[in-house]
Amino acid sequence: MGTALAGAWLSAGHPLTVWNRTAARAEPLAAKGAALAATPAAAVAANRLVVVCLLDDESVGEALAGADLTGKDIVNLVTGTPGTARARAAWAAARGARYLDGGIMAVPPMIGVPQAGPYVFYSGSRELFEEHREALAVPAGTRYVGEDAGFAALYDVALLSAMYGMFAGVAHAFALVRDESVDPGALAPLLSSWLTAMTGSVATTARQLATGDYTEGVVSNLAMQVAGVPTFLRTAEEQGVSAELLTPYFDLMSRRLAADARNGAEDLTGVVDLLRG
Amino acid sequence: MGTALAGAWLSAGHPLTVWNRTAARAEPLAAKGAALAATPAAAVAANRLVVVCLLDDESVGEALAGADLTGKDIVNLVTGTPGTARARAAWAAARGARYLDGGIMAVPPMIGVPQAGPYVFYSGSRELFEEHREALAVPAGTRYVGEDAGFAALYDVALLSAMYGMFAGVAHAFALVRDESVDPGALAPLLSSWLTAMTGSVATTARQLATGDYTEGVVSNLAMQVAGVPTFLRTAEEQGVSAELLTPYFDLMSRRLAADARNGAEDLTGVVDLLRG
Ligand SMILES: NC(=O)c1ccc[n+]([C@@H]2O[C@H](COP(=O)([O-])OP(=O)(O)OC[C@H]3O[C@@H](n4cnc5c(N)ncnc54)[C@H](OP(=O)(O)O)[C@@H]3O)[C@@H](O)[C@H]2O)c1
Ligand SMILES: NC(=O)c1ccc[n+]([C@@H]2O[C@H](COP(=O)([O-])OP(=O)(O)OC[C@H]3O[C@@H](n4cnc5c(N)ncnc54)[C@H](OP(=O)(O)O)[C@@H]3O)[C@@H](O)[C@H]2O)c1
Repeated sequence: MGTALAGAWLSAGHPLTVWNRTAARAEPLAAKGAALAATPAAAVAANRLVVVCLLDDESVGEALAGADLTGKDIVNLVTGTPGTARARAAWAAARGARYLDGGIMAVPPMIGVPQAGPYVFYSGSRELFEEHREALAVPAGTRYVGEDAGFAALYDVALLSAMYGMFAGVAHAFALVRDESVDPGALAPLLSSWLTAMTGSVATTARQLATGDYTEGVVSNLAMQVAGVPTFLRTAEEQGVSAELLTPYFDLMSRRLAADARNGAEDLTGVVDLLRG
Repeated sequence: MGTALAGAWLSAGHPLTVWNRTAARAEPLAAKGAALAATPAAAVAANRLVVVCLLDDESVGEALAGADLTGKDIVNLVTGTPGTARARAAWAAARGARYLDGGIMAVPPMIGVPQAGPYVFYSGSRELFEEHREALAVPAGTRYVGEDAGFAALYDVALLSAMYGMFAGVAHAFALVRDESVDPGALAPLLSSWLTAMTGSVATTARQLATGDYTEGVVSNLAMQVAGVPTFLRTAEEQGVSAELLTPYFDLMSRRLAADARNGAEDLTGVVDLLRG
């Protein structure tokens, strides 16, 4: 990822000093015009804007332990939790640096390829973000989501968590048709356009969470949907498929309904509240 | 749903005879031009094409027990499992009727509203489908998915199962930001466009399942993704959110990797195989 980011800045003509623990992996960047630093401290000393993209939060602490961060603008693109980002922001502040945390919503081949739609969530110092906005926009789009340094990670993890849920549902769907004479390639476009259409419900859920009225705009209410669950479980059983990826959600739907029969008129939004202790 | 379907046919000028157990609920359709039948047998006798939309499979057996189905074309739009559809097809064949099963991918307000994109999966008698294709296309689009009467239900359940997976992921995502100063309405468009973009992976998964090569076109391999799981679990913990909706999928990812370290180079597709005994 570091190589992809550096490549995008170099292609755009940005002066760049790079450091990588295994020096040989940084050398191709020198051929493209990057200055090579012998140590992290030297790399940090070269410019005000310092972009960090290492394996994890521990490696950031290790690599920058000997560097003078006074007056620096640290942009940390290492994936972590909101908590590690907040701790790293405090660490940077204690060393006299401004701090911006980033969550990269892309894989390396998408970096510097605007039509691939890569973007990065940023949170933390708004001044830092505004000052370096143009440079930050070179490798990928930017989405500034707040002063709380933890928010970039929070948004990043929220989107990826939702994606894993979708992947789980898709795995279940393909498993259902696996031993039938169903061509997965025929199911695929139906499945993706159905899921795309169903993302329309995300805005409804958000509105319901904001107002607290979980009955607003309900299309199929909780009672109807709980009544339909046995069809899903029986189909899985008929097809020899474990329902383990779906049962936790069905269980929460049932718990919400069992808690109060009036919840039967709601949408599925009550499940969100059951996830919080 | 029966009322919506009947209304669509009447609006299109199709002659229609209707029966409903509670007669009063069918009366508004008479005002729109439908003939009212006093019994299911009389309704069935009125036309060759018989569309059934009742609560469940049991109600179909009950309602049609006394009707003469010889030479009839039965289109059953009752939601069920592939197994109940196949049994109902055999039941119809034994009574001298052709049989088509349907799975409605819409809610009643979408019926007869083409721009809402409603459609019905059909499977079973291809002759029946071809002969009544135009009439069937009036309330909603049609997708014929095979001679096996169980396939309409199979496709229907597959799509809805995937949708519940996605809903589970979305619930987790909203739970993560629930007690923060994050406006769910600000997260929503980011979440839906991210999920929409990620539906691109469905076609890749289908191709991998068809060829058996789970490493083709891999963007983030299984080993990398398993390494990232602790970030998701720790974030949920920090935010006070139960990870119960995601852990079954993460567990299967880990099991696939633990089974053979070489699987680390694969995509997430191996999870599909783990769902089948
Ligand atoms: N790749 C993606 O698709 C993707 C997407 C979004 C976010 N990210 C995030 O981007 C960051 C980098 O990911 P990547 O894919 O580039 O990983 P990677 O290919 O494994 O590269 C890891 C980098 O960290 C360095 N490193 C590891 N431990 C170190 C230490 N203790 N001290 C100094 N340097 C150390 C490595 O140096 P050596 O060369 O010396 O080993 C290497 O440059 C991660 O936080 C990842 O979560 C990646
Ligand atoms: N609504 C949706 O969003 C939707 C979407 C896709 C598929 N479907 C499927 O469409 C079918 C109908 O759903 P719906 O929403 O219209 O349900 P509904 O509003 O509850 O209507 C059920 C119908 O079945 C009749 N019925 C129930 N038990 C019966 C019995 N033993 N004998 C004769 N008639 C009986 C009812 O008659 P009474 O009026 O006398 O009670 C009523 O006409 C279901 O299989 C459902 O899964 C519905």
